[in-house]
Amino acid sequence: MDKAENPIEQLESYDGELPIIATNRNQWFGGKARDQGRLDTLFAASRFDDVAYVDIELETARAKEWILEEFRENDVRLIISHHDFETTPDEDVLTAIIDQCAGYGDIAKVAVYPKDLSDTLTLLDVLREATEAGIDAAGIAMGEIGSHTRAIGHVYGSKLGYAPLLDDDSEYAPGQIPLGKLRALVESTRIAGTNLERIEAVEDDVTVPSELTLPN
Amino acid sequence: MDKAENPIEQLESYDGELPIIATNRNQWFGGKARDQGRLDTLFAASRFDDVAYVDIELETARAKEWILEEFRENDVRLIISHHDFETTPDEDVLTAIIDQCAGYGDIAKVAVYPKDLSDTLTLLDVLREATEAGIDAAGIAMGEIGSHTRAIGHVYGSKLGYAPLLDDDSEYAPGQIPLGKLRALVESTRIAGTNLERIEAVEDDVTVPSELTLPN
Repeated sequence: MDKAENPIEQLESYDGELPIIATNRNQWFGGKARDQGRLDTLFAASRFDDVAYVDIELETARAKEWILEEFRENDVRLIISHHDFETTPDEDVLTAIIDQCAGYGDIAKVAVYPKDLSDTLTLLDVLREATEAGIDAAGIAMGEIGSHTRAIGHVYGSKLGYAPLLDDDSEYAPGQIPLGKLRALVESTRIAGTNLERIEAVEDDVTVPSELTLPN
Repeated sequence: MDKAENPIEQLESYDGELPIIATNRNQWFGGKARDQGRLDTLFAASRFDDVAYVDIELETARAKEWILEEFRENDVRLIISHHDFETTPDEDVLTAIIDQCAGYGDIAKVAVYPKDLSDTLTLLDVLREATEAGIDAAGIAMGEIGSHTRAIGHVYGSKLGYAPLLDDDSEYAPGQIPLGKLRALVESTRIAGTNLERIEAVEDDVTVPSELTLPN
């Protein structure tokens, strides 16, 4: 919402088929929202039927735990997220972060910045362990060398993928993979016979309808 | 060669553009060749100009080190391989195996069978470390849950990909990805700006010419 013009007005006139994940970041979390009124605006968004999930930063959830119940009363599920734009925490730290996110919300999401390929393996291993522990986790290693984690994170249990809708180079950050390509990558690397029950539960809410026309 | 009919005759009449990796496995390495004459036949194959690489098992190289120089005199490069069809060795053991393979040949290749996703991460981490140590390594985690390592092994330094040529389900084992799809996956996950010097050196020998007509 912090990068959209009049996001509440846009939600009012929204007649698409896709359910929406609402986010309103301030500068500390890579966004542009002012602190003043930030959560009120996000709360207003959560009242719309089309908003199925709200993404709230772990730091926000921790500082203002009381708002979480209020969001839930608007019939949204909660993604609790942690972003590290400069490094990848050590494996035990990242595991603790995911545990905390899972304690506050329905999906624990982490996005980290890998300095090398050992960091991308740390992210995948943490996703694997969280999934084994029964947590609905999602994770991304940002940047160029983390790009492949967007494609195969699902193998290690990641429950959400993020992709720009348009196949337009100027519109996405290093490592991001446009939706049409990401979908092909996920489908090609999906493990037959995996228990998809939990993934399907999420998909009911947020998957892209097959009739959506994709560029490319 | 162990699964081909009259492989030497086929090499004699071969007029394709693709350079060939010759292999002749006995049952211990997943093949059908009898021990009697196995290496002689492989040696005969290595005399053909179209045969650019010979794949020799680590166990064979270790037991009969003297043959390696003889193969080299036929102007082929050596892939020294180790296969484990039942498990994935611990990380330090797998690293030692790759080091040994690299000591005997030009490319160290390991194929392991993962029992879970921690094994696939072990394989990727070993490839990463070998690559950092300056070894030309290649690796695969076999089976269904290892399938994605075929697609993204290159990110961690793997120098060879293996794919069935035909897009025919009956023709390939669990986890194998047909060539057309594998190429798309590799291209989609290739890291821009990676130093491709070593990959290109291998590609000069074994890459698939772009004019090859691929199914699908």
